[in-house]
Amino acid sequence: MMIIMHPGAPREQIDAVIAEIEKQKLTSHPIFGVEQTIIGAVGDGHYVAKEIFEAFPGVMEVQRISKPYKLASRQFHEQDSVFQLDGFSIGGTEIPIIAGPCSVESRAQILEIAQAVKEGGANALRGGVFKPRTSPYAFQGLGEEGLEYMVEAREKTGLPLVVEVMAVSQIEMMTKYVDVFQLGARNMQNFNLLRAIGETRTPVLFKRGMSATIEEMLMASEYIISGGNTRVMLCERGIRTFETATRNTTDINAVPVLKKLTHLPVIIDPSHSTGDSAFVSAVAKAGVAAGADGIIVEVHQDPAHAISDGKQSLTPEAFAKMVKQVKAVAEAVDRRLVVSQHATA
Amino acid sequence: MMIIMHPGAPREQIDAVIAEIEKQKLTSHPIFGVEQTIIGAVGDGHYVAKEIFEAFPGVMEVQRISKPYKLASRQFHEQDSVFQLDGFSIGGTEIPIIAGPCSVESRAQILEIAQAVKEGGANALRGGVFKPRTSPYAFQGLGEEGLEYMVEAREKTGLPLVVEVMAVSQIEMMTKYVDVFQLGARNMQNFNLLRAIGETRTPVLFKRGMSATIEEMLMASEYIISGGNTRVMLCERGIRTFETATRNTTDINAVPVLKKLTHLPVIIDPSHSTGDSAFVSAVAKAGVAAGADGIIVEVHQDPAHAISDGKQSLTPEAFAKMVKQVKAVAEAVDRRLVVSQHATA
Amino acid sequence: MMIIMHPGAPREQIDAVIAEIEKQKLTSHPIFGVEQTIIGAVGDGHYVAKEIFEAFPGVMEVQRISKPYKLASRQFHEQDSVFQLDGFSIGGTEIPIIAGPCSVESRAQILEIAQAVKEGGANALRGGVFKPRTSPYAFQGLGEEGLEYMVEAREKTGLPLVVEVMAVSQIEMMTKYVDVFQLGARNMQNFNLLRAIGETRTPVLFKRGMSATIEEMLMASEYIISGGNTRVMLCERGIRTFETATRNTTDINAVPVLKKLTHLPVIIDPSHSTGDSAFVSAVAKAGVAAGADGIIVEVHQDPAHAISDGKQSLTPEAFAKMVKQVKAVAEAVDRRLVVSQHATA
Amino acid sequence: MMIIMHPGAPREQIDAVIAEIEKQKLTSHPIFGVEQTIIGAVGDGHYVAKEIFEAFPGVMEVQRISKPYKLASRQFHEQDSVFQLDGFSIGGTEIPIIAGPCSVESRAQILEIAQAVKEGGANALRGGVFKPRTSPYAFQGLGEEGLEYMVEAREKTGLPLVVEVMAVSQIEMMTKYVDVFQLGARNMQNFNLLRAIGETRTPVLFKRGMSATIEEMLMASEYIISGGNTRVMLCERGIRTFETATRNTTDINAVPVLKKLTHLPVIIDPSHSTGDSAFVSAVAKAGVAAGADGIIVEVHQDPAHAISDGKQSLTPEAFAKMVKQVKAVAEAVDRRLVVSQHATA
Repeated sequence: MMIIMHPGAPREQIDAVIAEIEKQKLTSHPIFGVEQTIIGAVGDGHYVAKEIFEAFPGVMEVQRISKPYKLASRQFHEQDSVFQLDGFSIGGTEIPIIAGPCSVESRAQILEIAQAVKEGGANALRGGVFKPRTSPYAFQGLGEEGLEYMVEAREKTGLPLVVEVMAVSQIEMMTKYVDVFQLGARNMQNFNLLRAIGETRTPVLFKRGMSATIEEMLMASEYIISGGNTRVMLCERGIRTFETATRNTTDINAVPVLKKLTHLPVIIDPSHSTGDSAFVSAVAKAGVAAGADGIIVEVHQDPAHAISDGKQSLTPEAFAKMVKQVKAVAEAVDRRLVVSQHATA
Repeated sequence: MMIIMHPGAPREQIDAVIAEIEKQKLTSHPIFGVEQTIIGAVGDGHYVAKEIFEAFPGVMEVQRISKPYKLASRQFHEQDSVFQLDGFSIGGTEIPIIAGPCSVESRAQILEIAQAVKEGGANALRGGVFKPRTSPYAFQGLGEEGLEYMVEAREKTGLPLVVEVMAVSQIEMMTKYVDVFQLGARNMQNFNLLRAIGETRTPVLFKRGMSATIEEMLMASEYIISGGNTRVMLCERGIRTFETATRNTTDINAVPVLKKLTHLPVIIDPSHSTGDSAFVSAVAKAGVAAGADGIIVEVHQDPAHAISDGKQSLTPEAFAKMVKQVKAVAEAVDRRLVVSQHATA
Repeated sequence: MMIIMHPGAPREQIDAVIAEIEKQKLTSHPIFGVEQTIIGAVGDGHYVAKEIFEAFPGVMEVQRISKPYKLASRQFHEQDSVFQLDGFSIGGTEIPIIAGPCSVESRAQILEIAQAVKEGGANALRGGVFKPRTSPYAFQGLGEEGLEYMVEAREKTGLPLVVEVMAVSQIEMMTKYVDVFQLGARNMQNFNLLRAIGETRTPVLFKRGMSATIEEMLMASEYIISGGNTRVMLCERGIRTFETATRNTTDINAVPVLKKLTHLPVIIDPSHSTGDSAFVSAVAKAGVAAGADGIIVEVHQDPAHAISDGKQSLTPEAFAKMVKQVKAVAEAVDRRLVVSQHATA
Repeated sequence: MMIIMHPGAPREQIDAVIAEIEKQKLTSHPIFGVEQTIIGAVGDGHYVAKEIFEAFPGVMEVQRISKPYKLASRQFHEQDSVFQLDGFSIGGTEIPIIAGPCSVESRAQILEIAQAVKEGGANALRGGVFKPRTSPYAFQGLGEEGLEYMVEAREKTGLPLVVEVMAVSQIEMMTKYVDVFQLGARNMQNFNLLRAIGETRTPVLFKRGMSATIEEMLMASEYIISGGNTRVMLCERGIRTFETATRNTTDINAVPVLKKLTHLPVIIDPSHSTGDSAFVSAVAKAGVAAGADGIIVEVHQDPAHAISDGKQSLTPEAFAKMVKQVKAVAEAVDRRLVVSQHATA
């Protein structure tokens, strides 16, 4: 931590900061410059918040040197984390593909899509049963009934289930059904929920908030990991910017940045990051080319009649075509899609 | 709703859209243009999501005409809503001031600040007991113990309590203590929480999410109002932009825009919207000049040693000075601060 | 400047940075921490770019301590700059109001508006004769002919002229006509133009770029001041954010931030910062309440038929009403509008 | 164009809008809805600005249907434009790579880099001789002397030259030296410069402004094309967002969006869009995977001592490695790098 004092800050203000640094079990290194004094605070500062110093009289600015997260950092865990999930691994050479509808709408719908994405090359089935909807008047999901249909789909296809959890009260019930919890973008800083998920041992697909920085994303993931649930996969799903040509802006830079800062696997969600099925395949390929460890996409057998997110859903045919293209790009960057005995792609 | 077809969309695609419009109990008005066809969908469209049409084959774009919210809209309720709270009203001529620390840190601290803000001109006391912290290693609040101290502060000063609720599980307990629920920016789209608050009858100070549009803010408030809890106060607390000179960017435009779109009272939070006590007073005055109906600010007797948000907290002296300045601006725009027999300002 | 080395950077990389610091006539102060080394570079660093160090092997990050601008900074020039213009001053107690149409459309139009804004309380006349238009098919301005009409308007009303200059080649000609150059948002980093304006002695109304940070704005103004043209007025005209309810987002925080960082006067342009005449008056008042030293607004006698920016133009009646409201707010913050013998407000 | 009237707008306001539509040689189609009236304006509306209607009394909102640009649009020119430049084509199957230093610093430097990028697989040489620098105290470029060195580099390597033009006054002189004009991000809406470039017949590498929408980019390119200079290559170089982990945010979505909206070739600049050489290769691959037609990157033989942009410059070795990786990705998406008899890659 570097504490930069205002020009002309008197000696007693400097001394007060130094005293606080030592109270925090750090060592102080003041540099008395021509215009102003800068005080270095050296030691294990991961757990010392910079705001402790920001309000001290005479302090102009505080800048962190060490990262404000630890367990998620590559400094703490140098090797890539590789998680073994049901039927595939993530974080190593293999690139799994998670696909399915935005919402589970009916038994018939999810069974049909599950079969279709399996044939197209998917390794896991996604589907929402509790839906975060911008409008209170929109369809809010089938709830536990939807989970029962998903379990049936898993039985028929062998695909593990990735389902969004929206509230602490849903965790216990959902744990019985799902293989991977999805933590949605709107809940990235729902700290009670993060803590509760951290107490489970269900792997987590953790989505970046739409205006969260990469650092905030890693700090929020630390809530889960510090609870002992270490199998967190980070998902770039687009951020909010001034551009309105697409629903969100895919922050493709986040892929190599995350691979540098953290050992956790990184997944890209081109359905949400573009909001338009016409652009999903291009951005899926871009994600893999940039180093992503997995892909999650929305697929619907009849996008025009999907209850939600139809515009960004691929048809099964478009999905199968995307998988073939992604496979070629994966091989060009020395990765491969998951080798499965069932998939036809 | 206007459904704009792709140039050259064939007649059967147009007909499919028209059929869906009628299924939604709206009337269709196609305009067959030179390059493309546009289909107007007329009727009560508040509850019809535009995404229903977006994925139909041949549809290029769908544009709403009517607002996607209703109960919050000024069209639905033309007069300003004026709420009577304990000791003051909001939404009319009077401008109440809510003040207090970011976090309740101890009994002594909250009792002292409560007295100080009362003397400085506050009409309600804010204080956090469950804290949404970016880092899992930061202080997370005193919980129910903190509420007990706040109640004691209310007894001594008469100031009603404004406290953030972070989880559905906290609502029942908190209802016994607090006068106004604060719904925090990070939870603006925590729909389960919104719905649960909508079932209470405790007034709500509803904060805009840091990357929420004004329209999304109004749609989210609709979750609460449609549950029957109509006393919602909207709070502009800064949005996230590229500018890093301040913690957030105060969207001052949001004040007159909200006053035009909704009948609900609008509050400004210059502490969070600037993140720096040096700028709080200027932005508080700006908010009132722009038409805000109330102010919420952070005050701490010793900002340098505040556990959280010290940098943006006013001292009691600075707070009292701000109140005097805000009073002058309020009167310049034909408003007035709350007339209280206790306040010295 | 603080140069933060990567954890584990070897001694020779540290030495290379130290050597470069000394080559730049600064003094080096290395701090050897547990995890990494930080090197302070102390001295007059205004003119040393941080990028000099950023690409050195082993450097993780470089952070400035001193500001990258000097002449514009309050540290260099502690007192507020007050400029005497024709008929009013800016930067002191008086708040001048600049008003007029987006574009000069005809002789009759500008003469009529000039008279109207004069009567409504304006102290200077704005009007564009070279128009930066997003589309090449839109009206591009009357050019020198428009300036002749403006001069005639000045003769009849006494109002000095504020006119945008868009190209180096226009400067010489325009110098004969105008009292204040406006430097438009799209040209804020047109460095050739900045330098050429710096060589004139015509005062400059300098608009912030729509995605420029406050620091970049001050650095760009330094191009003009370092040429010897010190009469620069900084104008906040809204920034680009994700919010689409208004054309731009008024960064009201920028007003007190600029007043802290620089001695130059600060002007607010609520016409561009909102893009909607319905919100101009509220934001003009907010600007003055926040500490702005002046206001510039668009006024048109027939907004519906204005060639450009009609939506954000006030009618003369609305303008006169706004001036009265702004006057009350100015007085509430111990300022006053310019006292003129002509104005009727 | 759809003109949406305010609820309750009286008949005479509707009639005034209809009269204006017909004055603009469009046909009006009013839809009289329950709450409000919408008026469709049908015909060739490319050249009719929506602002013409925005300020009419009673108008709530105006929405374009046809695009505000024409010559750049894929509707106007359905096939991909393929330009033959010196030694390669762009817009077809081949993906050219443009490489070189940010600034030409000396004769020796540019000759060495030119040779190095040639050997690494470049098809054109970039280099700046007039530099847009944020600070007036930074190196501003070698000017014409730098161009002479570049010409010498072209003679030795055969690589055509891509050089930024910053001012109208530089065009005539530069035309004698350069093969492709680069139009920089800060000048994307410098309309005088755009128009002047449109009058030349030198191909243009046209960079997106850092806060320009895709639509504004296409409208600005129309300034050049409508002057008769049709060889415009659009370049995504990152946009400004709230994320600070990278210098800019690469808008990878822009690649497929542009390929859909326009026939012009699309180039990606991962050096500026990331600002960090560590991420350039990942994003270059992503760009090609997403459909980009070319790449431009910064290369320097000694990034630590580059006068500008050292942090984002690749070494020649890193560049050659990137080219090999990009080649593999290009082939995975059925493209290929330019086949050159000189390159060793």
